[in-house]
Amino acid sequence: MTDFTEFDRYVESHVDLYLDRLKEILRIPSVAAQGTGLQEAADWVTHMAQEIGLQARQIAVEDSAPFVVAQGGEGERGLMIYNHYDVQPPDPLDEWKSPPFEPAIRDGHIYARGVADNKGNLVARLCAVEAYQQVIGPLPVRVQFIVEGEEEIGSKHIEAFAHAHSDLFQGMDGCLWEAGYRDESGRPVISLGLRGILAVELRARTANIDAHSGNGSLYPNAAWRLVEALSTLRTPDGEITIDGFMDYVRPPTPADLELLARIPYPDEQIRERLGIKSFLGGVTGQDALRQLLFRPSCTINGIWGGYTGPGTKTVIPKEATAKLDMRLIPDLTPDLAYELLCAHLKRRGFDDVEVVRAEVGEMPARTPPDSPFVAIAAKVVKEVAQAEPIIFPFMAGSGPMYPLCQAFGIPAASFGVGHAASQVHAPNENIRIEHFVDGIKMIGRFIAAMAELPKA
Amino acid sequence: MTDFTEFDRYVESHVDLYLDRLKEILRIPSVAAQGTGLQEAADWVTHMAQEIGLQARQIAVEDSAPFVVAQGGEGERGLMIYNHYDVQPPDPLDEWKSPPFEPAIRDGHIYARGVADNKGNLVARLCAVEAYQQVIGPLPVRVQFIVEGEEEIGSKHIEAFAHAHSDLFQGMDGCLWEAGYRDESGRPVISLGLRGILAVELRARTANIDAHSGNGSLYPNAAWRLVEALSTLRTPDGEITIDGFMDYVRPPTPADLELLARIPYPDEQIRERLGIKSFLGGVTGQDALRQLLFRPSCTINGIWGGYTGPGTKTVIPKEATAKLDMRLIPDLTPDLAYELLCAHLKRRGFDDVEVVRAEVGEMPARTPPDSPFVAIAAKVVKEVAQAEPIIFPFMAGSGPMYPLCQAFGIPAASFGVGHAASQVHAPNENIRIEHFVDGIKMIGRFIAAMAELPKA
Repeated sequence: MTDFTEFDRYVESHVDLYLDRLKEILRIPSVAAQGTGLQEAADWVTHMAQEIGLQARQIAVEDSAPFVVAQGGEGERGLMIYNHYDVQPPDPLDEWKSPPFEPAIRDGHIYARGVADNKGNLVARLCAVEAYQQVIGPLPVRVQFIVEGEEEIGSKHIEAFAHAHSDLFQGMDGCLWEAGYRDESGRPVISLGLRGILAVELRARTANIDAHSGNGSLYPNAAWRLVEALSTLRTPDGEITIDGFMDYVRPPTPADLELLARIPYPDEQIRERLGIKSFLGGVTGQDALRQLLFRPSCTINGIWGGYTGPGTKTVIPKEATAKLDMRLIPDLTPDLAYELLCAHLKRRGFDDVEVVRAEVGEMPARTPPDSPFVAIAAKVVKEVAQAEPIIFPFMAGSGPMYPLCQAFGIPAASFGVGHAASQVHAPNENIRIEHFVDGIKMIGRFIAAMAELPKA
Repeated sequence: MTDFTEFDRYVESHVDLYLDRLKEILRIPSVAAQGTGLQEAADWVTHMAQEIGLQARQIAVEDSAPFVVAQGGEGERGLMIYNHYDVQPPDPLDEWKSPPFEPAIRDGHIYARGVADNKGNLVARLCAVEAYQQVIGPLPVRVQFIVEGEEEIGSKHIEAFAHAHSDLFQGMDGCLWEAGYRDESGRPVISLGLRGILAVELRARTANIDAHSGNGSLYPNAAWRLVEALSTLRTPDGEITIDGFMDYVRPPTPADLELLARIPYPDEQIRERLGIKSFLGGVTGQDALRQLLFRPSCTINGIWGGYTGPGTKTVIPKEATAKLDMRLIPDLTPDLAYELLCAHLKRRGFDDVEVVRAEVGEMPARTPPDSPFVAIAAKVVKEVAQAEPIIFPFMAGSGPMYPLCQAFGIPAASFGVGHAASQVHAPNENIRIEHFVDGIKMIGRFIAAMAELPKA
């Protein structure tokens, strides 16, 4: 087993260099939603990968921002590393204590847009690959970075990329996913998958014009139609009642349940903090966690129709709309969920309610918790963080895990340099410098452990 | 039986004078919502009533616009006449072909804000009282005008007025209500009552902050709670399912049904004009009319909550609100409907849905269609209009009929000088001059007929 004493010492003596590299990419305002700085950031990643001895190239698919593919090392095992160089928009700007694209160090933290999500992870991983080669020797596994520039706008070219370059995914034995964090108690979190998502608008339309409500006992009303359609989709306890929907939901396995039992879920504190009286169905404790992670959801994100101003307007709305998102548990795909929803409404005569699919949409993705790949992730994370990791079957966020990993049978695990107050997608995004350093140490160990990964 | 040949001739020879009077009051911008011109209009009514030989005075209640009470005549019978001198705001101004407070005559119509609703009626009635005395002799009944200045803002002082001056309502045998119109085919419409109204907001609140929809399978959602609460109030066919609600609804009497059978209801044309596929419950023809008039309604006027902008926002709304109005059939009062609604929601555990009552609220009011008072209204209207009147048990609009009439056991009937295209509450409000003249003739006859009204 490789000894990492020297490796750790090397990393610690190069922190200033690593932070300088991190600051360089943090200064590039690579906001995918605004189309700014993407080529510059891709170039930075490409050059940095080359500088640390990898073969790096940029691949564009259709009009996508460049994908950077960087490869190096030899060995029986292939380790894929997925990251992205684009970031969320920095708004609201006036809530930042230092400018979002001028990285600032305060109290052992580094602040900048994208430092946690996920340039800090990308740079830590690149630096780890370099340190490994400097201290320990040639990479004992085939390492392949895939770094995209459109993650924050839904990774909209990733399927086309994976389809056109499917050869890249052959011989890959696991994928380090983009990011991760320490929870409030300091325990590192490893996530093994993510739920899928389908977003739709339900648009009810019952007339050409708003009519006077004196006719309310006779005329159809779009707001009522919308309410009636919605009320067939879910019970008040949150159980989805779309015809056939639940048939596709795989219940948690014994390994999942074992995992769940080890995840702390401070349900009372959460309810108190949010001002929530009780969770759906009144569940508490681990039951709440299980419901959160293993039950699909159907959420009304917004609803509107008719008169919404002050006072009273005696009107029958001709139109009403609801935005919904559904979190999908395997094997529910967005296509399937959409078809089931449409068929369900049609079967009930809701011809006056149109179902319009939003651009947002993602496949659910899972890695079995008893996968050996997960075991090595847990081992190296625990060793560096000196704390038992918490392993989540699904992470809170979203991302293109399925088309890059599960579609090719590649297990995935996500951990990284963030912490519970990293302010991801919010002003004053930050990481702790010690976690950044730990992140480098973890990846060094991961590379070594990956070479030992038993064949299934 | 009084002969009206001479009366009609007198009226026709004084049309210019009557129109000049009408124009005078139309020039006063007595917009209750804006508080303008109310005293001036009250003064005009008071002076005109005095000029035609009535005893007139102004009565204010609290900070109300003045009520004008004008009395004259002697006899066994008392005839109350209810009108209002205030009008709706004239907006949108740019859609008026002539300024709203500069009465203009075009093609036999007179255009101005309030000419149909209801200064044209008020002036026609005053002129009729004068002509009666000039041509036929002293008024054979006790005539009492009650003219208010806050009808368009909900007659908010009328209950206090009626309570403080209940003596005015003793010995009154019927009330001519404010207005009426000819339908598209030219048939005069008489209305005998109006449905009550309760307006509320349902406000659901489930948390202190909007949460991320990744928690949608666990966290409560205000939009869902609102949908769930609403869906207990009504069936998709529009039948109200609020506990106990329907117990208070009096079914139509045989006299009502006879009335209904005589009301034309062009249901196909209405659906086509509004782009409505079918009415609630699929009813057609006279069934539709019966459902329209004799079934209480619960209408969502507006609904909103959460994210309503473009694109997707994966959020769980903490708050959601719906505005509702309910049309109430006797014996459902607004107080009762409100109590039943609150109890219904409470019984189902909707403690997180607040029911906030709006200022709008009115008692339902009915006059039995077989009342002798209705018979004389039908007789004089038919005689002058030379067409069979259509008698509606409930009018489309609203007004303070209950506190002025039914609360004192006084039957009421409403007819007047408008027509189907009078543009009430809209730009280019107008009446036909011939209908204005007919209105004067009808009231002359009504006064005479009232003296003959058999005692019950």
